[in-house]
Parts: sequence; structure tokens; C-alpha cells
Amino acid sequence: MLQRLNMVLMSSVCSRRLLSRSLSKKVKIVEVGPRDGLQNEKGLVPTEAKINFINLLSETGLPVVEVTSFVSPKWVPQMGDNASVFKGITKYPNISYPVLVPNMKGLHSAIEAGVNEIAIFGAASETFSLKNINASIEESLKRFIEVTQVAKENNIKIRGYVSCVVGCPYEGDVKPETVLTVTEKLLAMGCYEVSLGDTIGVGTPGSIRKMLSTVLEKVRPEQLAIHCHDTYGQALANILAAIEMGITTVDSSVGGLGGCPYAKGASGNVATEDVVYMLNGLGIETGVDLRKLIKAGDFISGVLNRPSNSKVSRALAARL
Amino acid sequence: MLQRLNMVLMSSVCSRRLLSRSLSKKVKIVEVGPRDGLQNEKGLVPTEAKINFINLLSETGLPVVEVTSFVSPKWVPQMGDNASVFKGITKYPNISYPVLVPNMKGLHSAIEAGVNEIAIFGAASETFSLKNINASIEESLKRFIEVTQVAKENNIKIRGYVSCVVGCPYEGDVKPETVLTVTEKLLAMGCYEVSLGDTIGVGTPGSIRKMLSTVLEKVRPEQLAIHCHDTYGQALANILAAIEMGITTVDSSVGGLGGCPYAKGASGNVATEDVVYMLNGLGIETGVDLRKLIKAGDFISGVLNRPSNSKVSRALAARL
Repeated sequence: MLQRLNMVLMSSVCSRRLLSRSLSKKVKIVEVGPRDGLQNEKGLVPTEAKINFINLLSETGLPVVEVTSFVSPKWVPQMGDNASVFKGITKYPNISYPVLVPNMKGLHSAIEAGVNEIAIFGAASETFSLKNINASIEESLKRFIEVTQVAKENNIKIRGYVSCVVGCPYEGDVKPETVLTVTEKLLAMGCYEVSLGDTIGVGTPGSIRKMLSTVLEKVRPEQLAIHCHDTYGQALANILAAIEMGITTVDSSVGGLGGCPYAKGASGNVATEDVVYMLNGLGIETGVDLRKLIKAGDFISGVLNRPSNSKVSRALAARL
Repeated sequence: MLQRLNMVLMSSVCSRRLLSRSLSKKVKIVEVGPRDGLQNEKGLVPTEAKINFINLLSETGLPVVEVTSFVSPKWVPQMGDNASVFKGITKYPNISYPVLVPNMKGLHSAIEAGVNEIAIFGAASETFSLKNINASIEESLKRFIEVTQVAKENNIKIRGYVSCVVGCPYEGDVKPETVLTVTEKLLAMGCYEVSLGDTIGVGTPGSIRKMLSTVLEKVRPEQLAIHCHDTYGQALANILAAIEMGITTVDSSVGGLGGCPYAKGASGNVATEDVVYMLNGLGIETGVDLRKLIKAGDFISGVLNRPSNSKVSRALAARL
């Protein structure tokens, strides 16, 4: 009886300790749907629809909306209208509108379009880097030295991405040390923030914690973002694990853009609606209006002519 | 500089502390697909297919497979073949095969069929209880007094369910104190374990933690299970939160049975495959063979003529 009482008391203390664990009161959401989402959708979205979509996103309270990618339309035809989209959207003063830039050519086009923030990238897997952009990790980062220098000269903010932070389609498990190395190099080049991407969505709270534990030994959590794809359904659990470790910036795509529910192995980004719902439930402030967010997600799902990949959006629609 | 160093050190210590947080090394999975899953599917599954399905589940290493419900076929036609299914399945010596029992009539039929374990239930919301079974919480529990007495006389193990533990479709938020009260009453009636169900899937790690924190003040974690539906996409994050609080039993349905991906607001149970994948990644032992589990999930999804609701199953199928 005494033993049982002890166990009850212990579990109670334990649960209280977990409850009082100081989660951040605020999380910044970086909406990557118009870029990372739409570039992985099969259908080409008309420029006008993209502009309307981004304008709807700007009304939700999101602090950052990644707009497009200044990459060759030969490689990514979905982003071929980058300048038109960037110039066409209404720019809110408190919102940042970064664009992905792979090289100097892209940077020049971005500057011409009036961009104030760019995103650069590196992989944490050699094989992925070689197969994806035909360069080793080291070479790929060197290509960004000039890009970042010119960006800084033009007062352009720089955000970094690391892909394959816990798993690679070719190499399998990825070493956390490689993630740390690439992250530090991106920070050294002038990135104000580095987004750690589980590109193929294989991570679990176990591998995410292991990876973050290594990166956080040298990098402050405020310099990091977590970027989860929901291929294996683990994204929200992984984001929870990351937030519990002090990460306060989360990338996501409204409507879970990037994967079609009818396609085999749909592999979209985690849906922004579902992230905001979870954070609301945790009492963490995002500044995002969930109803307006759902409106934007429904709009783009309609353009793509398919149901939203956001479970929150589908559940709330069913209640109406 | 010193301040920055301090912050880095602090975040590192913090992340290590979180990493070393002692999660249980083992989690018991209670497969509820054949009962909670199939009773919420629109299509009637042939008895022979149910038997084959449960036999496939028995080969996966799952310790508990809830087989059926001894309820009136007038109310739940999907479970009308309960006795035939229970008698038809191959029973493995190390697996428990509970059945849901709503009243004495159901118990007698279950005993006649040779059942060794039953499950009884109560809601944590008065309105839900009244609308669902036309009885107050108190009345509904009283109905189980005789059931549990007779079950015990027949050496039948008893498991309990509490529904609507964090949210009710009629009342909204549910008081954690009510969940505790119902749980304690079920334990007092002889339940060896009480499964806490987020029946409508509205919970987040925030509400799950708050609820569990209250229940764990009086009940040991070993006496509890967590039962999450994935209506709002929160199930895995909620399960992670529960495991972090010491819960070591998780209910789930292979293939995410219980909701159709083409139906508005699909609201199935969390998919067992996705739970096992997460637990594997956390280094938590379940004894379940993921490949065999996927085989069972694919089988029943084929019978229902629709894609699996398990993202792990879909992602692995796409890689083949």
C-alpha cells in the first residue's frame, strides 16, 4: 500500500514537472506553401492564383511567407513565373517574403524583382547533394559565398536550409555532426536562421531529438527552425519534440501542400493549420488566425482541385 | 559573448536533460481495429474477412487484439456476427482477445462464446452519455455493476474505456476531474486498466497533458491507456505527450480504421503502423513486427476497397 502510494506520488510529481516544463510562449511560423509546397505539386498553378493565394496568406497574421524560387524554369517549371508572382503580391510591412535562390543568376533576378530576403540551402547527405545538385556538400556551400556576399551588400536578409537532417533516400540515417557542420557554415556565411529539414519525412521524435541535441551543443535554438514533411505521419510529433527542446520557429505549408492525397506515398509538408491548432492547444502564441488560414488553404486546394491535406481543415469543414 | 555562451550552454544542458528523460523502454499496443475501427466503417465486412484479418493481426506480435462487440445488431449492425467472429479466430496463447460488452445480455453471449476478457465503458461528458446511451454517467456505470460481478465470478478480465476525455461534441471542453472520477469508478469495479479516449480527436498535447496530470494524481500510469483518434491530425503528438508522462499502453487501429479518407472529416483511430514506427524511432520496444502489421492493414484496406489511412503504410508502399 505504501509502495503504491509512493508510486502515485512519484507519477504525480513527474507529471507536474512535465507540465510546468517551460515551453516557449511564442512560436514563429514560416509559411513555405507557395514555394516548397507548390514546387512539389504536379499541377501548374496560374500566376494570378498564386498571387491571390499569397495575398490570402498575408491576411492571416503569418510573419513570414516564402514566395517563390528564382531557379531555372528548366529545372523547376512550377516556379517559372517567380518575378511576376513576387512583383504581383501585396506586401505587408510586417511580413517577410523570402525567395529561394540557388546561384548568382537567381540572386540578380531576385534583386531586380525587389526581394528583401533570400533563402540558400545545403544538404546534410553527400549522396543527396551529388544526386540533387551535382555537387558535394562542400562545393554546394562554396557556390553560396558570392551569393551571400552580394546579398549582404544589398541589405538582403539570408535564411538557410539544411535538407535530409535525419534521413536520406540514398544513405539512410544521417549523422547529426554533419547537420551541425552545415548549419555552422550557413550561419558563418550570414544566415540569420537555419531551417533543419526532414526532407523525406522519415524522422521520429527519437531521431529529431538526437539530431537537435548535437546541433544545440553549438547553436542557439533561436537560430534554428524545424521543417518537417509528413510522409510517415510523424511531423506534428517531431515538431512537438523540437519545441520541447527550445526551437521556436516552425516551417509548414498551408493545406499540407507538396503531396497529393491520391498519390502513392503522399509526402507534403506538415499542414500549417494542423501546426497552429496544436500550438493553440499548447497555449503557444503564433499570431495566426486559424480561420483565415483555413480559408487560404481551401482556396489553393480548390485551385489544385483536390481535398486539403490538413486534417484540421477537413474536420472543421465536416462540422459546418 | 559571455551571455551567448551561457545561452548555448543552457540550451545544451536543457536538450540533454530532455534526451535523458526516462521514457519507458516498452509500450503495450492494444489493437482496436477489428472493433472500434470496423464498427465505424460504412461498409459491412464479411465474417470470413474479419477472421482472416484478426488472424493476420495475431501473427504480428500484438499482445492484445480487441475482437468485436457483443452489442445488439440493431444498434451496431457491423458487429452482428460477433459470436461467429470470436469463435472463428485462431487464439494465440500469449494474446488477449477482449470484446466490448454493454450489458448483461452481451456478457452472457460473450461467456457463451468463450470470451476471457471484456471491455466496459463510460463517458466523461454527461451530454454525450445521455445522447449516446440514454443514461447519465452515473446510471451508465451502475449498469456495469452486475456485469463486472458476473465477469469476475467467471474469471473474465475487465478493461474499461472512458470516452470524450478532453472534448465532447456537445459540451466542448471536458473537466479532467470528471475523467478522474469515472476512471476511479471503473477501477473500483475491477477494471485492470482504463483506456482514456479522445473520441472525437480534438485533443492536443496541451489538453492531453492537463487531463493526464489530474488523473495521474490518483491513478498509476500502469493502470491507464491512451486512445487517440486522428480527426485533427494530433494523435501521434498526443501519444508522445502521454508516453512522456509515463503512460505505457496505447490503443490504435491498423490502417487507421474507423474513418474513410474520402469522407468529409475522416475521423479514424490513429494508425497502429504509424504508432509502431514512432515508437521504433524512440527506441521503445513493442514486440510488433511492422512489416506484418502493414500486411494486415493492407489486407483490411483491400477488403474495404480504399487506401490505408496509415501514412507509414502508404510511404513504404510507394518505395517498393
